[in-house]
Amino acid sequence: MKKIQVYDTTLRDGAQGEGVSFSAGGKLRVAQRLDEFGMDYIEGGYAGSNEKDTRFFREIRGEHLKHAKVVAFGNTRRARTRVAADTWVRSLVQAQTPVVCVVGKTWLLHVRDVLRTTPRENLAMISDTVRFLKDAGREVFFDAEHFFDGYRKDNAYAMDAIEAAVEAGADAVVLCDSTGGCLTHEVGEIVRKVAQASSVRLGFHGHNDMGLAVANTLEAVRAGVTQVQGTVNGYGERCGNADLCSVVPSLRFRMGCRCVKDEQIARLRELSLFVDDMANARHDPRAPYVGRSAFTHKGGAHADAVRKNPRSYEHLNPRLVGNDRRILVSELSGGSNVLLKAIELGAGQKESAEGAAEILKALKDLEHKGYSFEAADASFRILIQKALKKHKSFFDLEGFRVIVEKRGRNEPCLSEATIKVRVKDEIAQTVAEGDGPVNALDGALRGALARFYPEIAQVALTDFHVSILDPEEATAATTRVLIESGDGQDTWRTIGVSPNIIEASWQALVDSVEYKLFREEEAAKRKPRRHKAAGRARRGAR
Amino acid sequence: MKKIQVYDTTLRDGAQGEGVSFSAGGKLRVAQRLDEFGMDYIEGGYAGSNEKDTRFFREIRGEHLKHAKVVAFGNTRRARTRVAADTWVRSLVQAQTPVVCVVGKTWLLHVRDVLRTTPRENLAMISDTVRFLKDAGREVFFDAEHFFDGYRKDNAYAMDAIEAAVEAGADAVVLCDSTGGCLTHEVGEIVRKVAQASSVRLGFHGHNDMGLAVANTLEAVRAGVTQVQGTVNGYGERCGNADLCSVVPSLRFRMGCRCVKDEQIARLRELSLFVDDMANARHDPRAPYVGRSAFTHKGGAHADAVRKNPRSYEHLNPRLVGNDRRILVSELSGGSNVLLKAIELGAGQKESAEGAAEILKALKDLEHKGYSFEAADASFRILIQKALKKHKSFFDLEGFRVIVEKRGRNEPCLSEATIKVRVKDEIAQTVAEGDGPVNALDGALRGALARFYPEIAQVALTDFHVSILDPEEATAATTRVLIESGDGQDTWRTIGVSPNIIEASWQALVDSVEYKLFREEEAAKRKPRRHKAAGRARRGAR
Repeated sequence: MKKIQVYDTTLRDGAQGEGVSFSAGGKLRVAQRLDEFGMDYIEGGYAGSNEKDTRFFREIRGEHLKHAKVVAFGNTRRARTRVAADTWVRSLVQAQTPVVCVVGKTWLLHVRDVLRTTPRENLAMISDTVRFLKDAGREVFFDAEHFFDGYRKDNAYAMDAIEAAVEAGADAVVLCDSTGGCLTHEVGEIVRKVAQASSVRLGFHGHNDMGLAVANTLEAVRAGVTQVQGTVNGYGERCGNADLCSVVPSLRFRMGCRCVKDEQIARLRELSLFVDDMANARHDPRAPYVGRSAFTHKGGAHADAVRKNPRSYEHLNPRLVGNDRRILVSELSGGSNVLLKAIELGAGQKESAEGAAEILKALKDLEHKGYSFEAADASFRILIQKALKKHKSFFDLEGFRVIVEKRGRNEPCLSEATIKVRVKDEIAQTVAEGDGPVNALDGALRGALARFYPEIAQVALTDFHVSILDPEEATAATTRVLIESGDGQDTWRTIGVSPNIIEASWQALVDSVEYKLFREEEAAKRKPRRHKAAGRARRGAR
Repeated sequence: MKKIQVYDTTLRDGAQGEGVSFSAGGKLRVAQRLDEFGMDYIEGGYAGSNEKDTRFFREIRGEHLKHAKVVAFGNTRRARTRVAADTWVRSLVQAQTPVVCVVGKTWLLHVRDVLRTTPRENLAMISDTVRFLKDAGREVFFDAEHFFDGYRKDNAYAMDAIEAAVEAGADAVVLCDSTGGCLTHEVGEIVRKVAQASSVRLGFHGHNDMGLAVANTLEAVRAGVTQVQGTVNGYGERCGNADLCSVVPSLRFRMGCRCVKDEQIARLRELSLFVDDMANARHDPRAPYVGRSAFTHKGGAHADAVRKNPRSYEHLNPRLVGNDRRILVSELSGGSNVLLKAIELGAGQKESAEGAAEILKALKDLEHKGYSFEAADASFRILIQKALKKHKSFFDLEGFRVIVEKRGRNEPCLSEATIKVRVKDEIAQTVAEGDGPVNALDGALRGALARFYPEIAQVALTDFHVSILDPEEATAATTRVLIESGDGQDTWRTIGVSPNIIEASWQALVDSVEYKLFREEEAAKRKPRRHKAAGRARRGAR
């Protein structure tokens, strides 16, 4: 099995992506997680370019990494500058990483128009810089920027640039498709030629401007490279870099390469979500292997086929990458799908079959209004109960009032919610303040119910999403709120939809609370004996 | 130049994607737009599977399409059923489209485990169905589902299935990578073999489960197919289908094929955004060619290089696909980038240079709090004014109060906002109701300012986005609100950030209003003469 080095540049090239931003502490946590996952190299930042990256290189030295080597990225020396005096090169040394990756030009257009120097001086810049860093004791990779564009225009010069790095002692040469403009078969042809001409270890670094970064990376491996560069979730400038969450499992499971260990690939989805969180980026539900939708079946016929044989519409067992198969409820799904989902959620087989028509009708009405139960299992369970006329309201709302007030341009906004609920014949009325109106309302509702249902105290809201369904309606647009709640054992998701964000949030809050209470009641019904037995045992132990 | 047929299945396979949903009217509008763009075939839906698709086929018959042919998609007949009596096949005929696409099995695993019939009966099902539909006068495409998986397991049977369709008169055979599990070079190899063995027109239909759908489609064209199937924005089950927004420009500009006309490709981004809107899907900013970030430069060095020569980091002129180059403001950009942006936004060159340090400092402070000016030009312009101590508040806020009230579980939520502002020495106090709290607040603010600044009446909010920065904080999470406003001539974007969604919205509203007033003032200063002249002319005309 061919061993492929995995080189992660999430923290450098990835961080240049629009909408991606890591805090300094976040970079450190991501590096630790990448190490744990089994990346061979972690590029931590652009040496000397900003305070955050400098701080990262300083702090990572104090961390114990199990496997990965940290890499500082930087430029070759400036034109007509002594290498030892060049601040860029000095920053690379000052980063004190075991590995450095030096980016240099191999395309004459860049030498002429961007560096504004001569082809010959550019070769000297590469060679001087690599040699200086080798002398400083570093493992040195030469990043041949724009290699494919350069090679297609003037292959002799592109090869000269590589040769300059190799002669100066570079440990690997990374062929970069920096504009992402290279077709897959072109990558294969050019890499094959370079591999024949040179015996240095080759890497590939691809961008996604034509949607080909992953394909180009896999093709480069077939053609002879043994190092792949990319980012978690494909972050990066413009359309992003090659997504390692796609590259790694394909290398391993489809091409039989040795790279990251299987037990770590089984945590790939977790890695993807963690990095999204740390980067403040939105999870791409359609991402290959790791996306929430990657093994999700919506069409009735497909869902049916997958039930008969998972391989029929799955190229891979989702567990291998830490993902799950999901069957969705939607207008495209027939009654059998809705039934299946209802049963999966715990409704009885018989009652579901009898009420299927009512459930479908209620579902369609609500979907028409903008509800979407694909990500709101708990609200869907309550919808089933309501459609079957089995829903029990755990409380009545007498009313609530939320006030948000600001008493001057620079004064803080204050939020206060009052609520009055009735449980059986008792009234509870509470008031709560909060960081915002929904937070205040949540506090007031829990406060009012606490006396009757102490188990509500276990519930915490763990996620909150707001989407605007018809943004062109601006502030009058319909708002969809999704809330995730957890009680330490389970998590569940609920939804609310309204032109009023407070009303939408309220619906999702009520569903969340009622789902919890409903589940507790079900659990109590199912195992009354064990509860009693446990009670006796406890008494006996006293 | 090789002519490639473009077959769009956004309305069928695309609609099966999670989070994608078209209304019946929406499907019709999308079909018209796809026709205008120049798609050769538009697959409208799954014949007979649901009311929405049936309605689409009925209504599209009344529409005049300029170029595209509408296709109904459906199954081969059931096993052991007479083709003329089969309801699936009858639905295909009843759709009354000029073209039908019949999906059949070519992989024995599916024949056995999903259809639960014999290999021989499956061939008869394909052949009977194709012949019946040809006899009904249709152009017939045979969709060879799972062809690549089938071919790799038993190439003889897969070829027999194709042969059955061809002998029965199929006009084209579409080779499908239905699970998206085929590597790019495998697609090339297999397509080449089929193209050698058969003279029928071949198509390719690929899924993106390994992130290879676009690469596989382009490779299939190189290997001999002359029809590409895909969806706008890559919608589709699981990880989606081949994205036509990537495939079409690469075919045209990188592979020199003839397909959609250049003047239509120049509207590709517009098509992508339109379809996202109609599908209620979120725009992918990183989408190749059409994404908001596709030609966006964030890193200081890259931005600098692009200024010197656009080709240095752009594989294509963004205008060819209706996109734009953008330079972003961010922590990674140096002072020169911020200056550039400030000047682009209309701040003077001199004042910007002098205040660069203050601007950068203010920018970093706010970015640290969660602000992001990449999509909020108007707020960034105001930030510059504030950093240069040149900001003028057009009003003082004495205070506002927003009340949201609900008086029972099934009662509607009422929203009311009161506001008190001071302009010079005058006080205005107004109240407004709204669909939600932000809508009410917006109404109250405009009401209060109308007397002093009648031009505010021209401003409409045209877009509203809410994102939660740290969703795990749930309802106490920081909220970022982005508002787009327009006055019929310009549009501008503003931002607000706070744990309180009302406060965040308020900030964005205030920036929007002040930006408008500031611009009006600037305009008045720049052309006082023309204004006076216009005034005289008007008086003269009376």
